Amino acid sequence: MPVKTIEWLGGKIRIIDQTQLPEQLIYLTIDRVEELAEAIRNLRIRGAPAIGIAGAMGVALTAFQHTEEDKNRWIEKLISTIHILKETRPTAVNLFWALDRMRRLINSTEDESVETIRDRLVEEALSILEEDRQICRRIGKNGAALIPQEATILTHCNAGSLATADYGTALGVVYTAVESGKKVKVYADETRPLLQGSRLTAWELKESGIDVTVICDSAAGFLMEQKKIDCILVGADRIAANGDVANKVGTYTLAVLAQKHRIPFYVVAPLSSFDFSITSGDFIPIEERSGEEVVNGFETRTAPTGIRVYNPAFDITPHELVHAFVTEQKILYPPYIKSISDIFGKNSPK
Amino acid sequence: MPVKTIEWLGGKIRIIDQTQLPEQLIYLTIDRVEELAEAIRNLRIRGAPAIGIAGAMGVALTAFQHTEEDKNRWIEKLISTIHILKETRPTAVNLFWALDRMRRLINSTEDESVETIRDRLVEEALSILEEDRQICRRIGKNGAALIPQEATILTHCNAGSLATADYGTALGVVYTAVESGKKVKVYADETRPLLQGSRLTAWELKESGIDVTVICDSAAGFLMEQKKIDCILVGADRIAANGDVANKVGTYTLAVLAQKHRIPFYVVAPLSSFDFSITSGDFIPIEERSGEEVVNGFETRTAPTGIRVYNPAFDITPHELVHAFVTEQKILYPPYIKSISDIFGKNSPK
Repeated sequence: MPVKTIEWLGGKIRIIDQTQLPEQLIYLTIDRVEELAEAIRNLRIRGAPAIGIAGAMGVALTAFQHTEEDKNRWIEKLISTIHILKETRPTAVNLFWALDRMRRLINSTEDESVETIRDRLVEEALSILEEDRQICRRIGKNGAALIPQEATILTHCNAGSLATADYGTALGVVYTAVESGKKVKVYADETRPLLQGSRLTAWELKESGIDVTVICDSAAGFLMEQKKIDCILVGADRIAANGDVANKVGTYTLAVLAQKHRIPFYVVAPLSSFDFSITSGDFIPIEERSGEEVVNGFETRTAPTGIRVYNPAFDITPHELVHAFVTEQKILYPPYIKSISDIFGKNSPK
Repeated sequence: MPVKTIEWLGGKIRIIDQTQLPEQLIYLTIDRVEELAEAIRNLRIRGAPAIGIAGAMGVALTAFQHTEEDKNRWIEKLISTIHILKETRPTAVNLFWALDRMRRLINSTEDESVETIRDRLVEEALSILEEDRQICRRIGKNGAALIPQEATILTHCNAGSLATADYGTALGVVYTAVESGKKVKVYADETRPLLQGSRLTAWELKESGIDVTVICDSAAGFLMEQKKIDCILVGADRIAANGDVANKVGTYTLAVLAQKHRIPFYVVAPLSSFDFSITSGDFIPIEERSGEEVVNGFETRTAPTGIRVYNPAFDITPHELVHAFVTEQKILYPPYIKSISDIFGKNSPK
C-alpha cells in the first residue's frame, strides 16, 4: 500500500514530513500558505508530481481563509498565493503546471460566488490528486512492460509514492513489475546531499517488501562495470520539447554510465512534467541550493568552516542518452522532437 | 607547509587522527601494533603511500618492544607484526610493498644483534618516509608540467599531504603548479561515504590558501557538462601491469565522464603503487567495508534500520580511460603495457 504523501482534510493539508524519514513517520497539518511554502522549500514535501498537488491544494487552502473579506480582495489573496508558491522551487514544472491550472479556473469562475469558486478550487485540487493517482497506475503498467522477467534496476533520488499521490513514477514501474510476478531487485543511490534515496526510496521499497540495496552514488559506475544492472529508471522534474531532462543532480552521470555500458536508461514521468514551451535543457532553470546541505547536513559539519560549496539540486540529461520516456499515455521513443510533439499536438496537457 | 601526517618519535609513531578532521586536528601517539592496526582499519591514517609508511613504522615499533625476549621469539614478533598489518586493508599495494621491504631487511640481517636489526628497521622505515617525501616533490614537478597556466582541476578523495609523507600525489601536482605561478582552482568531490574530499582535501587546500570548492560526487558530471573542468587528477591504491587502476570508489565514474567530455584524466602515483605482478584490474582485491559507513555515518542514521547496503571502498578504472600516469620518474603514456613494463624492467622498485 502506498503511503499518503499528501491529503486534503476539508480546508487543511496533511503531508508526511519527509525530512523526518526514515527515523520517524510524522504527519504535518498545514493551514496557512506560508507553512506550505516553507514545507516545499525545505523538502518536507518533494517530488515533481507531489509538489504540483501541493501547489494546487495551497490555492484551495487560501480559498478557505479570508472568506469574510471583499470578494476582490479574496481573489487577490488567491493570486498572491499562486505567486508565493511559484517562488518556492524553480525546476520542477509540475508546480507551475498545477498553479496555472488553478489560475485558469479562477479566471473562468470569477463571476461565481466566493463559495462556488472555493468549492471549484477544492474540486480542481482533488482532481489533480486523483488524476495523479491514476497516472501513476497507468505509468506503472506501461513501464512494467519494459522490465525483464528477472531484473536488477538502479534508481536515483525518490520517484516513488513519496513523490506522488500514489505508486510513484519510476518506482511505480517497479511496484507494478513486482505485482505482475517479475523478480525485481533494486539498487537505490543514496542521492547526496539530502539522501532521498537512502531515506525515502529505501524506506518505501522496504516497507513494500521489495528487495532493495543502498549504495553511494559513486558506486553506481562500479556496479554497471560489474554487469550487475539491467536497467536504470529515474523520474524527471522537467522535460524540454526535445527530450532533454532536468532531474536530481547525478542523473546525468548515470545516463553517461548507462551509455558506456549499453544499459537502457528510462525516464518515467507524467505528461505534466513535459514543458513543451521550452526547446531544450539549456533553458531549464537549475535550482542551486545552500552549500550547508552538503557540508553541514544531518547535524554534523563535514568540511572546514567557511569552505566554498557548489550545490546544484538538478542536472540536465541530454535527450540522446534517454532510451525511452514512460508516460501515462504511452512509451515515447526517439526521435523525441517528433514523439513529444505528436503527443502534445494530439493531447496538450490541461 | 604540508602537515606531518605520520612521524617517528624514537620508538613511537605519531599520526594525525584523520577521522577527527576537519573539526579537530588531533595527534595520536601509538606504541603498540594493535593500536596501529586499528588506526589503519578505521582510516585514522589512510592514503596508499601513508599506510605504506605506517606499515614500515609498525615493524619498527614492534622492534622496540619485547627486546628482553629471546632473539628468535623477538623475530617471530616482527614477522607476526607484518602479518597483522597485512590484514588491515587489502587494496592499496603500498602497504604490502613496504611490509615486504621490511621483511627482506629482517631476512638479510638475521645474523646481526637485536640492537643492530632494530636500528636497521628504524632506518628503513625512515628511509621509506624520506623517499616518499622526495617522491612527492618529484611527482609534483613532473605533473605540474601537464597543468595549463590557468586551470580548474577536479579531484576525488584525498591524495594530498594527509595521504603521504609530504605534498601528496594528485594534490602535490596542484601545490607545485600553484607554487610555479599557475592559476589553479580545485573542485573537490566530497567522496562518500567517508567524505575524505570535504573533510581532508578541502581542509588541506584551504589551509594552503588554494581556491577550493566542495561538490557532491554526483555533481561532477554536471560540472563537466558545463565545461567547467580542465583536467582530473586522482591518486591510486594499486595499478596493475596493464595500467588498470584501483582507487577510491567513484574514480571510475569520473574517468567515464572525462572520456565523454574529452577531459584529460591523470592518475598520479608513486612507482610503489604499481603491482607489476598483477596483469589487470580483474585481479585487484576490492575492499568491501561496513554498510554502516554509508547509512549510519557521522552519528546520524540515514536509512531504515536493517537495510541492505553495498559499500565497495574502491573501484577499477580500466587503463584505456587513463590519459597518463604521473610518477616520480616520468610521465607514462599509453600503451601502458609497454611504458609500465619499460620502467619496471629498467628499475624494479625495491
